[in-house]
Amino acid sequence: MKLMQLVYLVSFFSVLIAFGYAVYLHLWVKRQPVSNQKIMEVSDLIHAGANTFMRKEYKVLAKFAGIAAIIILILLPSPIWQGEVTTNISMALAYLAGTVLSAIAGKIGILVATQANSRAAEGAGKGIKPAFLIGFRGGAVMGLAVVGFCLLGVMAVLWLTGDASILLGFSFGASSLALFAKAGGGIFTKTADVAADLTGKVELGIPEDDPRNPAVIADNVGDNVGDVAGMGADLFDSNVAAMASALVMAQSLDGGSGANTAMVFCYAAIGLLASIIGIVCARVGQNGSPTRALNSSTYTTTAIFMVLTAAATWLLPGFQWRIWGASAVGLIVGVVIGITTDYFTDDSKPIVQRVAHASQSGSAFTILSGISYGFISSLPAMVGIAVSALTAYKLCEPLGDGYALFGIAMAAVGMLSIVGMIISNDAYGPIVDNARGLAEMGGLGEETIRVADELDSAGNTVKAVTKGFAIGAAGLTVISLLGAYMSEVNESLAALGRELITGFDIMDPTVFFGILVGAAVPAVFSAMLMLGVDKNAQRMVAEIHRQFREIAGLKEGREGVKADYDSCINIATEGSLKELIPAGLMAIIATVAVGFIGGPSAIGGFLLGNITSGLLLALFMSNAGGLWDNAKKYIEAGHEGGKGSEAHKAAVTGDTVGDPFKDTAGPSINTQITVVSLVASLLSSLFAALSLFG
Amino acid sequence: MKLMQLVYLVSFFSVLIAFGYAVYLHLWVKRQPVSNQKIMEVSDLIHAGANTFMRKEYKVLAKFAGIAAIIILILLPSPIWQGEVTTNISMALAYLAGTVLSAIAGKIGILVATQANSRAAEGAGKGIKPAFLIGFRGGAVMGLAVVGFCLLGVMAVLWLTGDASILLGFSFGASSLALFAKAGGGIFTKTADVAADLTGKVELGIPEDDPRNPAVIADNVGDNVGDVAGMGADLFDSNVAAMASALVMAQSLDGGSGANTAMVFCYAAIGLLASIIGIVCARVGQNGSPTRALNSSTYTTTAIFMVLTAAATWLLPGFQWRIWGASAVGLIVGVVIGITTDYFTDDSKPIVQRVAHASQSGSAFTILSGISYGFISSLPAMVGIAVSALTAYKLCEPLGDGYALFGIAMAAVGMLSIVGMIISNDAYGPIVDNARGLAEMGGLGEETIRVADELDSAGNTVKAVTKGFAIGAAGLTVISLLGAYMSEVNESLAALGRELITGFDIMDPTVFFGILVGAAVPAVFSAMLMLGVDKNAQRMVAEIHRQFREIAGLKEGREGVKADYDSCINIATEGSLKELIPAGLMAIIATVAVGFIGGPSAIGGFLLGNITSGLLLALFMSNAGGLWDNAKKYIEAGHEGGKGSEAHKAAVTGDTVGDPFKDTAGPSINTQITVVSLVASLLSSLFAALSLFG
Repeated sequence: MKLMQLVYLVSFFSVLIAFGYAVYLHLWVKRQPVSNQKIMEVSDLIHAGANTFMRKEYKVLAKFAGIAAIIILILLPSPIWQGEVTTNISMALAYLAGTVLSAIAGKIGILVATQANSRAAEGAGKGIKPAFLIGFRGGAVMGLAVVGFCLLGVMAVLWLTGDASILLGFSFGASSLALFAKAGGGIFTKTADVAADLTGKVELGIPEDDPRNPAVIADNVGDNVGDVAGMGADLFDSNVAAMASALVMAQSLDGGSGANTAMVFCYAAIGLLASIIGIVCARVGQNGSPTRALNSSTYTTTAIFMVLTAAATWLLPGFQWRIWGASAVGLIVGVVIGITTDYFTDDSKPIVQRVAHASQSGSAFTILSGISYGFISSLPAMVGIAVSALTAYKLCEPLGDGYALFGIAMAAVGMLSIVGMIISNDAYGPIVDNARGLAEMGGLGEETIRVADELDSAGNTVKAVTKGFAIGAAGLTVISLLGAYMSEVNESLAALGRELITGFDIMDPTVFFGILVGAAVPAVFSAMLMLGVDKNAQRMVAEIHRQFREIAGLKEGREGVKADYDSCINIATEGSLKELIPAGLMAIIATVAVGFIGGPSAIGGFLLGNITSGLLLALFMSNAGGLWDNAKKYIEAGHEGGKGSEAHKAAVTGDTVGDPFKDTAGPSINTQITVVSLVASLLSSLFAALSLFG
Repeated sequence: MKLMQLVYLVSFFSVLIAFGYAVYLHLWVKRQPVSNQKIMEVSDLIHAGANTFMRKEYKVLAKFAGIAAIIILILLPSPIWQGEVTTNISMALAYLAGTVLSAIAGKIGILVATQANSRAAEGAGKGIKPAFLIGFRGGAVMGLAVVGFCLLGVMAVLWLTGDASILLGFSFGASSLALFAKAGGGIFTKTADVAADLTGKVELGIPEDDPRNPAVIADNVGDNVGDVAGMGADLFDSNVAAMASALVMAQSLDGGSGANTAMVFCYAAIGLLASIIGIVCARVGQNGSPTRALNSSTYTTTAIFMVLTAAATWLLPGFQWRIWGASAVGLIVGVVIGITTDYFTDDSKPIVQRVAHASQSGSAFTILSGISYGFISSLPAMVGIAVSALTAYKLCEPLGDGYALFGIAMAAVGMLSIVGMIISNDAYGPIVDNARGLAEMGGLGEETIRVADELDSAGNTVKAVTKGFAIGAAGLTVISLLGAYMSEVNESLAALGRELITGFDIMDPTVFFGILVGAAVPAVFSAMLMLGVDKNAQRMVAEIHRQFREIAGLKEGREGVKADYDSCINIATEGSLKELIPAGLMAIIATVAVGFIGGPSAIGGFLLGNITSGLLLALFMSNAGGLWDNAKKYIEAGHEGGKGSEAHKAAVTGDTVGDPFKDTAGPSINTQITVVSLVASLLSSLFAALSLFG
């Protein structure tokens, strides 16, 4: 086991380097000057608001996680009265560790992001170069924290228990947190955004970040909880799931050599190192393009990963080139998905411009063209995921039994290897978005706002790319989870002395039944979230109207009169948790109903239908949302009549529709899929024992 | 074979009765008075315009069908150099017969509908009762023609060849026509509708059916070609496919008795008779509700069908109660789907009212709430289809090998048994819609227009129900087609001496690859159709602007000055065919690519993915479209501020988005699915012989 020790050591040192560099970056960010009193004040409000949300969210989550941990303790991996008690305890503890580590990473990300925003705002006064660096390095802390905690957690669980299947518990923990952080945060952010826009921009005609608007702090908080903490939790979840399923397979393939397990860790560690190098290299010139800087550091990271993993595969004993190929295919397809997403959502490309042009005929045409291109944009990603799964499978099939599915898992690991870089890019977005708002509220002048605007626009484009990437990675990961579900079910069936399942045949009517129901669930889930945003936004609009009515001088902006920002933050927080629960319950109840009606085979179909339509809708909604957002920005930059034109009004409608698409419903579908997989695996023994048609 | 003779005789007489009654209804409609010169003139223009479209459409179709027939002649059921030449000739002829019979039914439907519209307009002057009867009976001719020709064709093919598998050729013919009629007609109708609204209502502020608008005739023609001919062809297609796949299985199950085959015909004939009785009974009082009249005749037909088939099952030898159960389950689920669709699209129900209310906050909220409820509305139908397939399967499984899948096919036959009634209800819609326009153009006065409006609104609601029904039926039918594809592939594999396929396992990466790609195709297909409508509408808008500019006095409505209606009709016609072809080609190329990459298993997955996401999107788009249409009508009836309010403007945007959703993209997905199944079965032998990973 010398190889394993070496790999553990390398992984551990990469984590240490990542944490060390994150601390350095954090201190660097904190050292950047911030002097404007107003800005510091607002930034503190944002920081406090984000903490309010996270505190309440974590409180609800704690209850949820407690119940789930008890269920796991009793049932997983096998009912406590049948199996080893210690294994169940490990599983439950791993589950809790998954939620806690992801929560800590989110907390750190929010802390740094809410310090970086004010500094980036002041930095923007000195030009693109310093402001970009503050925004990017602030985001990078989150990226490093997520990947570091993820690798550390996986290593610890495996090292302590020696049993890779316990990692599924850790992965489930990460999924539970992601549901709350991503879907809850998604409702929060769009509640505030929509309510702020409706009352501010539409009713009063005041600018986006005017401090008179009681929702303005909630809106800025939303950017942080939705995009920093939410997206971080989502990618933490995907990354853990990919590693967990790869390690489960690796362990069963290893025999005594440990080579496959070593390979998974080695690749993950190299991915982290490559991301660190990419972060170090990210720079922009005084007149450079921030979008290009973000993208080129992604490409740098990708290239470094491929070269280093090739070197490791060449040098280390038992590492196989075919598996390297599978992970390379995954990563390349991930980058390709990112590029095609960029094609559909970047305003220098034809699609966004066409939607902007169509807006001249009215908002119906903004919507129709956006929906159409959103649908079309799903094709390359779906084909990419399909091709990478097929290629990885066929590439690794010749290595022997079980290697084919391991190949798919390694494609997912490859795609997610650069996740540190991806999260850094993504978290950059809300920091500079906040910075733009702070520059406006602090009265830093037009030139500073222009610089902040440019940084913000780059953040939007890159965010769209990140989402495509996250959805693609989730797609590949869930294929591995389907395999995990099957082995889970077969254990239960074996215990019952029943025939094992060798696959899920679509001609089997119970499988088909599951597929159709499973396909409808993401549609209903996302609809419930969107309606939840709407309902919650109505509540907040009512509160804003109340404040304008009751707080004398607020509307007029009288000196010294302050809006009650906290009440808006509270509404967004409580509403987001209240609206999230029914949607989550619907998905869980549907799973349980299908399981008890159709049995384990129906659940196999259910998961497949869920993945398929979930990917399609998530890609459609994320891309259409990004497209509309940038079409509006494109018009605001002076095209098709510019600000205030009919086309602009139509584009604003598109953007308002797109907001919950891209920031609430679309990306939450990922976590809905993993939660459903969790429930399915958790209850597989019950479905095997009791079902109407199973 | 005495039983078969009896059943053939009964079927033949039902067809004769249907045709006889259709002729009677046609003569009755023609006898109704029409005296207003203006109305007759416009009605003639509509009739001529519809003929122009159909002539050009059939010309393009003839080329397409010719090529397809030659391919069939060479390749199907087995390559001409391997099998019997006569079988291939029969198959090719059956294919051509399928296109021709469906085309004739469409032609008859259009003829009667364009005669009934003017008479219904004048009838509206005398009240709801006579106008309803003219509209409904005019539509019933189409319903009877479609079902009559369908049953006649199926009977003829089976009687002449004795080989049920030749029916697949007949079914493919019906699908080809449906693609052109439904998708082409769908583009036509929305091109004209959108262009007429944009230039008339929005730019000039003139009423919907103002004769000054050069697009007004094209708009009325569109209602006929889209909803009468298009929907008729779609349901002809589904009905033939359901019968064909049921008969293929019945024949292989029959042994010598013929009981199962007899059962299929007997049930189809009873369905036709039940529809006739339902049509005879459809009446509305002078102050009655036309919606209720349409719905109650559907329920009557359903009840009669169930009772008569139960009687037949009891009386006739070899008829099995379990199979009766399967067909009853199918029909009941069909009605339930209809009722849930109604719940989501009827303006007396809460959903439409909520969307209308949300419109007060602006068009973004009309869109968001409509999309959300559209997504949710897909759930009951998906579950319904899933449950009926599962129940039918499990119900018939104990009858022996092969009966389980036959049960699913019989559920589809049951669901489609009342299709005569369904088409009658559906074709009623465009007739009264036209009548409303004619009443306005003929200056028949406000009270007449109000009556016509009420009839029109009932048509809208019922149309939404019909679409839900048609999609549900298509869903069940395509499950049977998946079975047909498998037996097709296995013949090819057996000929190659390769291992047969026993199913399609979703854990097989080629199947999974197919599923993901197949799921993306309906999204891209519908997007291309919607973008096609948009492009084509822009062309027509340019033409309308040209006419307003160049024809002196047109805009002002000077006496004797006429718009050039024909040029608009030509633009809609040519554009619709031009925009249809790339979308159709995309679906076909995707099928071919997946087949050559992944082989027969990948195609199995491809068809499944296609069906799953196709059903989801078709239900979503049809229901959301119907919802927006009626939300607008609800506001126009004086709610939420009524006509001209901000809510109304927002609802108009929703309606404009919904139009191509519900009349072009949504329902065309059905035919896309059947076309893809056709191509898959056609080329299965090639995929089996040549593929990269197969």
